[in-house]
Amino acid sequence: MSQPQFLPQPVAEPPLSFREASFAATAASRVIIERVSPSVDAGIFPSKAVVGQTVVVEADIFMDGHDKPGAQLLWRPVNDLQAQAVPMSPLGNDRWQAQFTPTRSGLHSFTIEAWVDVWASFRSDLLKNAAAGSASPSEIDEGREHVLAALQRAPDADWEHAGAIAVQLAEGESTQALAILISEDLDILMQRCGERRLSTRLPREVLVDVERTAAAFAGWYELFPRSQTRSPDIHGTFDDVIARLPAIRSMGFDVLYFPPIHPIGVSHRKGRNNSLNAQPTDVGSPYAIGAADGGHEAVHPLLGGMGAFRRLMAAADDYGLEVALDFAVHCSRDHPWLAEHPGWFSWRSDGSIRFAENPPKKYEDIVNFDFYSKDAKPSLWLALRDVVQGWVDEGVRTFRVDNPHTKPVPFWQWLIADIRSRQPDVIFLAEAFTRPAMMYRLAKIGFSQNYTYFTWRTTKQELTDYFTELTTQAPKDFFRPHLFVNTPDINPLHLQTSGRPGFLIRAALAATLSGLWGVYSGFELCESAPLPGKEEYLDSEKYQIRVRDWNAPGNIIGEISRLNYIRKQNPALHSHRNVKFYNASNEQVLYYGKATPDRSNFVLTAVSLDPTHAQETRFEVPLWEFGLPDDAAVQVEELMRGQSFVWRGKIQHWRFVPNEIPFAIFRIRPLS
Amino acid sequence: MSQPQFLPQPVAEPPLSFREASFAATAASRVIIERVSPSVDAGIFPSKAVVGQTVVVEADIFMDGHDKPGAQLLWRPVNDLQAQAVPMSPLGNDRWQAQFTPTRSGLHSFTIEAWVDVWASFRSDLLKNAAAGSASPSEIDEGREHVLAALQRAPDADWEHAGAIAVQLAEGESTQALAILISEDLDILMQRCGERRLSTRLPREVLVDVERTAAAFAGWYELFPRSQTRSPDIHGTFDDVIARLPAIRSMGFDVLYFPPIHPIGVSHRKGRNNSLNAQPTDVGSPYAIGAADGGHEAVHPLLGGMGAFRRLMAAADDYGLEVALDFAVHCSRDHPWLAEHPGWFSWRSDGSIRFAENPPKKYEDIVNFDFYSKDAKPSLWLALRDVVQGWVDEGVRTFRVDNPHTKPVPFWQWLIADIRSRQPDVIFLAEAFTRPAMMYRLAKIGFSQNYTYFTWRTTKQELTDYFTELTTQAPKDFFRPHLFVNTPDINPLHLQTSGRPGFLIRAALAATLSGLWGVYSGFELCESAPLPGKEEYLDSEKYQIRVRDWNAPGNIIGEISRLNYIRKQNPALHSHRNVKFYNASNEQVLYYGKATPDRSNFVLTAVSLDPTHAQETRFEVPLWEFGLPDDAAVQVEELMRGQSFVWRGKIQHWRFVPNEIPFAIFRIRPLS
Repeated sequence: MSQPQFLPQPVAEPPLSFREASFAATAASRVIIERVSPSVDAGIFPSKAVVGQTVVVEADIFMDGHDKPGAQLLWRPVNDLQAQAVPMSPLGNDRWQAQFTPTRSGLHSFTIEAWVDVWASFRSDLLKNAAAGSASPSEIDEGREHVLAALQRAPDADWEHAGAIAVQLAEGESTQALAILISEDLDILMQRCGERRLSTRLPREVLVDVERTAAAFAGWYELFPRSQTRSPDIHGTFDDVIARLPAIRSMGFDVLYFPPIHPIGVSHRKGRNNSLNAQPTDVGSPYAIGAADGGHEAVHPLLGGMGAFRRLMAAADDYGLEVALDFAVHCSRDHPWLAEHPGWFSWRSDGSIRFAENPPKKYEDIVNFDFYSKDAKPSLWLALRDVVQGWVDEGVRTFRVDNPHTKPVPFWQWLIADIRSRQPDVIFLAEAFTRPAMMYRLAKIGFSQNYTYFTWRTTKQELTDYFTELTTQAPKDFFRPHLFVNTPDINPLHLQTSGRPGFLIRAALAATLSGLWGVYSGFELCESAPLPGKEEYLDSEKYQIRVRDWNAPGNIIGEISRLNYIRKQNPALHSHRNVKFYNASNEQVLYYGKATPDRSNFVLTAVSLDPTHAQETRFEVPLWEFGLPDDAAVQVEELMRGQSFVWRGKIQHWRFVPNEIPFAIFRIRPLS
Repeated sequence: MSQPQFLPQPVAEPPLSFREASFAATAASRVIIERVSPSVDAGIFPSKAVVGQTVVVEADIFMDGHDKPGAQLLWRPVNDLQAQAVPMSPLGNDRWQAQFTPTRSGLHSFTIEAWVDVWASFRSDLLKNAAAGSASPSEIDEGREHVLAALQRAPDADWEHAGAIAVQLAEGESTQALAILISEDLDILMQRCGERRLSTRLPREVLVDVERTAAAFAGWYELFPRSQTRSPDIHGTFDDVIARLPAIRSMGFDVLYFPPIHPIGVSHRKGRNNSLNAQPTDVGSPYAIGAADGGHEAVHPLLGGMGAFRRLMAAADDYGLEVALDFAVHCSRDHPWLAEHPGWFSWRSDGSIRFAENPPKKYEDIVNFDFYSKDAKPSLWLALRDVVQGWVDEGVRTFRVDNPHTKPVPFWQWLIADIRSRQPDVIFLAEAFTRPAMMYRLAKIGFSQNYTYFTWRTTKQELTDYFTELTTQAPKDFFRPHLFVNTPDINPLHLQTSGRPGFLIRAALAATLSGLWGVYSGFELCESAPLPGKEEYLDSEKYQIRVRDWNAPGNIIGEISRLNYIRKQNPALHSHRNVKFYNASNEQVLYYGKATPDRSNFVLTAVSLDPTHAQETRFEVPLWEFGLPDDAAVQVEELMRGQSFVWRGKIQHWRFVPNEIPFAIFRIRPLS
């Protein structure tokens, strides 16, 4: 492909030649605004924020010479024309900052306005000359002129005050005038009405997507409704799920998530343990969506149909639990759409339908959509949007999306924006176990939360590296990690042999490292029997009904409940973004802290990663975060055990015993 | 300033609401191109490159599902409409790469085109199915269709070959067809003519500013022409400078740089050692530009006027030396422009001119321009541009710009682009000793090179941190550090007490850390007498003529000559960008390596930072860079001493003696 080609054709903005650049520069501002944060891909995508939580905006703002710039932040929900102005303050080294706290969900935007602050520039020089006794009469005259001109612009509330100063300044002698000119009193007034010369703004407003709290902070519990039954021969219903709600809520979870609840296809139905030969009694995989009874819009009749679903929604609401549905964008061979909309699918030249493949594997029970076929755009896109909208109309506000990375990214970008244009509180979780570029892209284009690599990160180095990337690199502004300890698809290798201590370790890590964590049912019973040699569960619930004894000995329901309680009580644990890793001497002990911005809530977590042996470690109490010396003391509350004590000095020690609690969560406070 | 304000007014692109974003997304490409490198501030500014040196372009390119994307780089000088296409290759983990080598200076641009590679996607599946023996007849038929359709698009050169394949494929049996479909032969052809579905490009072309070699690799020597004389009572001339050219060239320098060469003002002239009371014989500071004899366009009569300057230019050219002039944008009180263009300056209400100040200091001999006064834009800007253009017309191709950070950045952006639109080979060096944001901004808007903080970075940690920032953070793409060991303004504190070994240390660091280094004359004689307690030279040449004995004992002319020779011989030393710091056990020894991309030139430099004591260190030979095991051997040439030997094993040892040569430069090669 080395033949020459003609450029440009679809290039939106052709590059500037030197000459064009030269003319463009003459219109550029003398005051420069750079390195704006938060900003995702130069503002193309929104950064993420949460209602009621402060958004900190920073930028480099500077200009030539020793004149002083001034700056303000202008922010608004994008549907408002009216913006709020917040003065920006210099942090040093040309970095400026301002904050705002959104009060409702939806897209917001901000820009930064910066200018030559004529008064501040003049006053800075005057103060130095005055201190050196070298303020000249002409300088004082100049100051008078600045002030008298500026006071004309004084806001109404300041008008009387401004008038008084103007009179003093106009009538006073030089020494009196100098005293007024350098007074704090005048400076405060001039900050409001001083001349702003050569004012400039960012070339584009920067987007911030503000979501409700649950987008960033929630504990999820996943179950198969059909398994909520007394016998594997009896299909559970949503009414059975209702009976389970008190137990789930008492564990402290916020979101109850179901795999697909729709009618299940019978053609090529999978049997137990993914067998290709289903028995007549086999219930099939709920991911084989669609049958004679309906497709993505329908509820499986054996779950009780739409009536039972609505009863469940009401009951969940009574218990303060939110229901999350699975949105899996593909069809069983029996989905009504195959006959109704053949143009939405891909066909071979011999007239056979193209089923899902990952060569040489073939998934004959699943048919994918052809999003870019001539018949599919827009009708398929609209139909899928209508499916989601239908569930939103039923009150569903959270969707876990199955394998979004195997469907076109522009489709998700469109669908999520479309749904949220009417209901900005809807949350989408991306289940994309794929390479980082795609995982991050899905977060950029609108997914509120993402499944992560956490499930496979087990060592101190791996966990530290991963969370350092998520909290200090580009993803910090747009990617919210949802830490699932297990899923119906993933029976993690490390849990297959770890026994109960391993489950406690993973629960503690997930619950304290991110604001979002999730458990698939059975985890609390430390279930781990694998399909031999695989990272999958034996007798997977994907293919059969599983009945469990929720009171089985050795369960960790108490510990999970306690973890969720600690999470709710400690705002420091409501996000992953504030995590800092501190020093612990033992390579088997991961040790990190989280604090609220004002440090009023400061939580240290230490987790032994060894489910087999007792581990001891020395660790550093980050006294410096409170500005305390190395020999200071802090009041400590160990939140899992409810013990209180005092630590004196920076170096402390702890011992973790697998069969007790292999981790500790300390809330610390400076000794008053 | 918390009153609401209306938005947007000067906002070029209003933010998208959810609904607008939703519609926009439907037009977005299914193939995603992200994280393009090099790209400065999302392509707003050009990255920097050098004629004849390879530009490596990378991007994340990916799409949904398991279809394969394809991609090509399209690059061109911006004045050409015709772009060159280069296929991009995957590096793994969705990263793709291609390279191009510009052959002329000037602005270039590139874009990336990516598409669904229909053939590669099909072939990848077919290969897996064929290997599993499960390629179906319908799949083979599909392959036939792909190929027969694609071969219609075969380039002329491939037409015969394509035709032969088409015949075989159309007539062959299934097994024969399969063999053809999976053949390498067909794949090579299909890479050229296979279907590219849903092709997309970057939203804007990305700029690359290509400059001649000297923008990135040059040794500079600075002198005051008037000091090239036998006696402080006799003003040196350009003809005296001509006599010095052989010595300067023999030291290996490439650029000869003069402080301002213009007529010097007499009002408020500064005397020796910056005295406010000049004696009648005092020559004044060359930065007090402008007198009755002329301003920025004129040559000081005592230097020999324009005639002597032209003789110098011709002679310098004969010696292979390039002349760099100082562009200092301010006036003495006697500059003709004060009378001719009063509107270009700033005046007080009492009618007095506003001179330069840095309160409480006053610089009564210097007047700054008021770039944004109503009379100055554009006439002042054009006049200053014409000054530069005038010197360009005299053959000058390099300008060192004095304090650019105290003049408006848009002015520089305009001026540099304007000059380079006619003569892209002109180089501008920014002398901006200021905070990082401004220093970097000046590089972004067009300065080829910048003075740096190197002059004050002396410890191993400081030097490592600084060069790590310059070579791994954003500046790597646009900032070229010019390492001056001293300047007429800076007599570095550490050299005031270090003696000769300190001069050798700083020369070695500057000459090997960056492609650009500079020496102000006197350095080679280890001059260091300070104004007491200051970072300035006693009897500074800025205010008086200084005559030197160029053969004074203890000079380091030999060592500097050798360093410049080593630099020229070793392409690894032609840039700062390839520096890597390696382990040396001694905290007083800085140890780093540089290599060409193919590692054919691999240079390790170890510098003792201690001018007083001998230092020894163990250090790691980076055998791994050649893929060699820890016990391998390399051939070593120590370039300062001209010694050759063999190192066996990763850990080696060296001893540095201040009064010999306190550093070593090793060229290493794997033992063949």
